[in-house]
Amino acid sequence: MTGRLTVLGLGPGDPRYLTADAASALAAADALYGYGPYLDRVPPRAHQDRYASDNRQEGVRAAAALEAAGKGANVAIVSGGDPGVFAMAAAVCQEIENGPAAWRAIDLVVVPGITAMLAVAARVGAPLGHDFCALSLSDNLKPWPLVERRLDAAAAAGFVIALYNPLSRARPWQLGAAFARLRGILPGAAPVVFGRAVGRADESIVVTTLEAADPSQADMATLVIVGSAETRLIRRDDGRAPLVYTPRSAERASA
Amino acid sequence: MTGRLTVLGLGPGDPRYLTADAASALAAADALYGYGPYLDRVPPRAHQDRYASDNRQEGVRAAAALEAAGKGANVAIVSGGDPGVFAMAAAVCQEIENGPAAWRAIDLVVVPGITAMLAVAARVGAPLGHDFCALSLSDNLKPWPLVERRLDAAAAAGFVIALYNPLSRARPWQLGAAFARLRGILPGAAPVVFGRAVGRADESIVVTTLEAADPSQADMATLVIVGSAETRLIRRDDGRAPLVYTPRSAERASA
Repeated sequence: MTGRLTVLGLGPGDPRYLTADAASALAAADALYGYGPYLDRVPPRAHQDRYASDNRQEGVRAAAALEAAGKGANVAIVSGGDPGVFAMAAAVCQEIENGPAAWRAIDLVVVPGITAMLAVAARVGAPLGHDFCALSLSDNLKPWPLVERRLDAAAAAGFVIALYNPLSRARPWQLGAAFARLRGILPGAAPVVFGRAVGRADESIVVTTLEAADPSQADMATLVIVGSAETRLIRRDDGRAPLVYTPRSAERASA
Repeated sequence: MTGRLTVLGLGPGDPRYLTADAASALAAADALYGYGPYLDRVPPRAHQDRYASDNRQEGVRAAAALEAAGKGANVAIVSGGDPGVFAMAAAVCQEIENGPAAWRAIDLVVVPGITAMLAVAARVGAPLGHDFCALSLSDNLKPWPLVERRLDAAAAAGFVIALYNPLSRARPWQLGAAFARLRGILPGAAPVVFGRAVGRADESIVVTTLEAADPSQADMATLVIVGSAETRLIRRDDGRAPLVYTPRSAERASA
């Protein structure tokens, strides 16, 4: 008998960003698997087991959940944000591809969520209002020269850039290196947004410019948006942060 | 007295993708503004006015909602998907920037939603599991050579590409031109996904390859994902569509 594995996204953390579909999947699962801090956001339920694991254990976590679903259980893997963006859905697919043939028969359901860049963008206006890209700055899983190549290509072509995994204690220099590289391509006045823990008590949103952007304002949980040459700041007089938006139209054929 | 303007996203259409935050904003608004088919997805409420407008009327719609909020009303603009991705939030910011100074004092709230690329990606696995970009193929608001330049840059640098607004009756050739261009850069076996109306009765998901992709399978409401050279297909024996995913790790420094 084959069970079901649901891979679902909680969004940025506050329950108000949860979709009805993700709430149903949480309620229906016999067991939840996930990185501990994400599981901690889900209220406990009777008769629902929980298996917390470290954030470097994606492959092991995916395999454990597939193993349980393969035996007939209805289990869920819990991601922050959207499970398909730098998160668990790809890890599950990879385990299915490389695992026992029976895992291909499991009923795999991916339930989307509000990914960090959408939540941060909403807080400041519409910086992702035109063409944009999402790029992980982690060089744990790809070589740094490839990160540099993608930064260069995206900036030169005029994409707004959302940076995931900007730095961590073990990777302290990557965000600074990315800003330095982007300063060689984009105007210093290009807006930059640091967003963290949207909707939670410790929410932090900082709007600045590329020339002034200080990497030490970010940590592992920060999402950074670097505007294009088209991205605009609207100052407001009343002490609120400026609005940031990228117009839906671009007049120039160059970036 | 200054009111509030909420710009909110319904997600792909089915109520199961609505966030709790968007549902609250819909319930609290004195009036709703939006493209007719999006408003039609919202159940009517007593004492809540509705102003439907055509999908080419973004600026006019934004100004009308700002005008009402400037007079003290609590109004909402309803977008499909996420309001910050090729949608109304940028149009509202643009009207604020160019409109009367009083509009800057309006309490503007953007409520994120599940954008089409996340919903389509979830249906097939995790094609956006690594670096990706979102690009509108409409040349109504930017010159086509800029679209070509961005397609070239994104494909050559190894980004997975989500194409919004792939074509319409008035723009019938753009998606075919984009595929032709991408075939010159990416392998013919790169997976391509056409997704439409996720979660609705007329949902359609097609998984194919770049060499076989037929632009006539898309319409105005289709979201197209073009994989990178790293994106993989996992065949399943039981008649279900293959899984599509992009591994979280990239070994090679070239695309």
